[in-house]
Amino acid sequence: MKDLLWYKDIIKKSELAEDSDVKGCMIIKPYGFYIWEKIKKIINKKIKNTGHKNAYFPLFIPKSYIGKELKHVKEFAKECAVVTHYRLKEINKKIEKDPDSELKEELIIRPTSETIIWNSYKKWIKSYKNLPIMINQWANVVRWEMKNKIFLRTTEFLWQEGHTVHSKKIESIKESQIMLNIYKNFLEKYMRIPTITGIKTENEKFAGAEKTYTIEILMKNGKALQAATSHLLGQNFSKAFNVKFVNKKGNIEHPWGTSWGVTTRLIGALIMTHSDENGIILPPVLAPIQVIIIPIYKNKKEYNKIFKKLITVKKILKKINISAKIDNRYTHSPGWKFSEYEIKGVPIRISIGEKEVIKNLIEVTRRDTKEKVLIKIENIKKEIPIILKNIQNDIYEKALKFKNSNIKKINDYNDFKENIKKGGLIIAHWDGTKETEEKIKKETKASIRCIPINLKNEKGKCIYTGNFSKKRVFFAKSY
Amino acid sequence: MKDLLWYKDIIKKSELAEDSDVKGCMIIKPYGFYIWEKIKKIINKKIKNTGHKNAYFPLFIPKSYIGKELKHVKEFAKECAVVTHYRLKEINKKIEKDPDSELKEELIIRPTSETIIWNSYKKWIKSYKNLPIMINQWANVVRWEMKNKIFLRTTEFLWQEGHTVHSKKIESIKESQIMLNIYKNFLEKYMRIPTITGIKTENEKFAGAEKTYTIEILMKNGKALQAATSHLLGQNFSKAFNVKFVNKKGNIEHPWGTSWGVTTRLIGALIMTHSDENGIILPPVLAPIQVIIIPIYKNKKEYNKIFKKLITVKKILKKINISAKIDNRYTHSPGWKFSEYEIKGVPIRISIGEKEVIKNLIEVTRRDTKEKVLIKIENIKKEIPIILKNIQNDIYEKALKFKNSNIKKINDYNDFKENIKKGGLIIAHWDGTKETEEKIKKETKASIRCIPINLKNEKGKCIYTGNFSKKRVFFAKSY
Repeated sequence: MKDLLWYKDIIKKSELAEDSDVKGCMIIKPYGFYIWEKIKKIINKKIKNTGHKNAYFPLFIPKSYIGKELKHVKEFAKECAVVTHYRLKEINKKIEKDPDSELKEELIIRPTSETIIWNSYKKWIKSYKNLPIMINQWANVVRWEMKNKIFLRTTEFLWQEGHTVHSKKIESIKESQIMLNIYKNFLEKYMRIPTITGIKTENEKFAGAEKTYTIEILMKNGKALQAATSHLLGQNFSKAFNVKFVNKKGNIEHPWGTSWGVTTRLIGALIMTHSDENGIILPPVLAPIQVIIIPIYKNKKEYNKIFKKLITVKKILKKINISAKIDNRYTHSPGWKFSEYEIKGVPIRISIGEKEVIKNLIEVTRRDTKEKVLIKIENIKKEIPIILKNIQNDIYEKALKFKNSNIKKINDYNDFKENIKKGGLIIAHWDGTKETEEKIKKETKASIRCIPINLKNEKGKCIYTGNFSKKRVFFAKSY
Repeated sequence: MKDLLWYKDIIKKSELAEDSDVKGCMIIKPYGFYIWEKIKKIINKKIKNTGHKNAYFPLFIPKSYIGKELKHVKEFAKECAVVTHYRLKEINKKIEKDPDSELKEELIIRPTSETIIWNSYKKWIKSYKNLPIMINQWANVVRWEMKNKIFLRTTEFLWQEGHTVHSKKIESIKESQIMLNIYKNFLEKYMRIPTITGIKTENEKFAGAEKTYTIEILMKNGKALQAATSHLLGQNFSKAFNVKFVNKKGNIEHPWGTSWGVTTRLIGALIMTHSDENGIILPPVLAPIQVIIIPIYKNKKEYNKIFKKLITVKKILKKINISAKIDNRYTHSPGWKFSEYEIKGVPIRISIGEKEVIKNLIEVTRRDTKEKVLIKIENIKKEIPIILKNIQNDIYEKALKFKNSNIKKINDYNDFKENIKKGGLIIAHWDGTKETEEKIKKETKASIRCIPINLKNEKGKCIYTGNFSKKRVFFAKSY
């Protein structure tokens, strides 16, 4: 509970986002939205470079579509916003829904778009010549969650959802793995978040998928977070929506599908990985402002002396494509500004006072380590990019260390129960049954986060039942 | 009616978009969405360069918010999608809305976001130091239209909506005019659509605005289309939402607002301006594919001879940042391909056969004029950009000529009635009253599109009442 207060507080103070008056719906403020735009731009490019095209499908899904894939409806029915009327009118001096505008078939706000998209694909696909279809969309979706946490679990969120169709099963498998790797690469290289990749258990996989690949991350508070997923849909949706194609041999087949996505949750993941007691810490490649320049002065006369230097420094940085901002508000003290940009996670702070101007120096402070160095103006071009690069590297190393020191290999259930309370990831043997998984979850609140991909098989005994296990899996409490 | 069939047909064949199963909601297919992405990118840059920041506000608006601005609710209540429940469940073996999930306060899907945004601004604004607020969002909105026309009038559409707040009235006036000019410049320079800018009459202005600036365009079928609007909100929303600030003198005031937007309707405008009987015609700067390269061959042996040349040509074009595609599908004849890319409006077609390879030539065909020229391979770098530039210029000249030849100055009401049937814009005197405006509309179906900005005052007599008029206004039938 305490960590959540800290989390909410930091998001408010850094002006990333805030809760709206509509339950579970957030307002992403300009500072937070700029980070989302950067995330979008990078991922969008990777999606396009791997042969996908963007499109846009309707917000509304007819109620009957949701019901076509049985596991799908079971999962999403619990959290669907339902549109029943299309007009308001004044009734007894109050604005009410117009009873005459009741819809014949109610509409669901998309919680995810498999159903509406496969309904279109049905019309588009006749022959193997129409395949593969490789479409992505950036959209808002709605899942009526009861427990909301800003960015991590919101009723409305923004995401991209890819939906592909293939004539061969093997192609769909490759596709889902390509996307998994794009997400993994993005999280590690750009967001600097260490990842664990694996496969979801039958219990935890996407409703309607044959297999769900997942990227799990470990957050500061010891909980795990599902950061990205890539689903192998098999023929589940092509059968549910009766999508068929004529293959090269002239036979009729159901094609193979995938879907995959990441959401605004990533911003929550960023905060829960890199923050400290003073605020958020942003990886330089995703930071809206990479360098903040703050003048230190007592009066107008002093300010006039350093003003030119501020501009010079900003110009030098602009030339080498570093986004820098001067904060010369006279209404706020330097100390106030220092703490503001610390909260906002600006990677580098440059401060310039009269002393520095005389010596042709600037004072450079790293957000992550608080280290201070003095740099000569003529060395800015060389030194600042190095410091940004170091920050980009060091925050990953720190997060990796945290992750590695919070993974425990455990072979005993009492040990397991004790350790799961402390948070972190536990890697333990499991007999592969749904029953055991559910019992452990009920007793400890820990779920199986994934069956890891990059871990060798190792025969052992299930920590709960003692039955045979061929591989360890990751357990954790999670959002 | 006929023109609409042609319009729908061309959109389907060019694969820009299609109607979905949900009434009035379209599916924007990859080819159409790519054009929207280009539009978005250019406008987004202009919005940011003028000091605005992007953000994101909720899809849902509590019903009570909509009612706070009285004119606003009157207009939008007629076409609001209403969310009443948040869960489905199985009842008598059918999936139904769960009666236990009824919302205490119903939610409206945003038809426009003034109300939810001003409700937030109220919390953000305390002092003149918090102003101006200059925020824009790219989002989907829903207006339950009864008569749908793909792109031009859809239940769900995509748009950007800017919402600014200023401490001084004059600043808000400047802001609304800056945005009007950005839209005008975009339409003319990039989309190559001639515009008429003006002010909406009281009858036609945005519900809740003090003044609506509009950009009207004339379409191929003689109807006018409102292509972009910029609203001066005055203090209407700040009063309705009780937004106040302390000004520099320490007094409490209501701030001044603007809002402005363009939508996916622009793609409809593009089609209705530049198409011909063979399909759409795209301005080169907005075309997903600028040059299509088509091989002409009878058999595999011939294809092998020209294959290398195709690659060479594409490479040359890529180097000078021209987006080119080779269509080497053996399943389709060159003739079939010619007509496909004509429908899709690809500005330039290059065809290469054995003859051309021998002579080191390519055949270049302009989409707009159908003109053909032979160009030497070594001249591609120089010639193709010139042709693209000529197309970009010539389609504007053609559209401008069409517009100018379809504006008629009319002084007699019988004349007016006769001419309005033929389509086009009529510029005529009007006495400035709502009554006259409504009578003319009822009798002729023509509305006042705008009171033009760039037209000098000219005393005259209203065509309908004969009463005094100080200025001519534009009449037309419209979507």
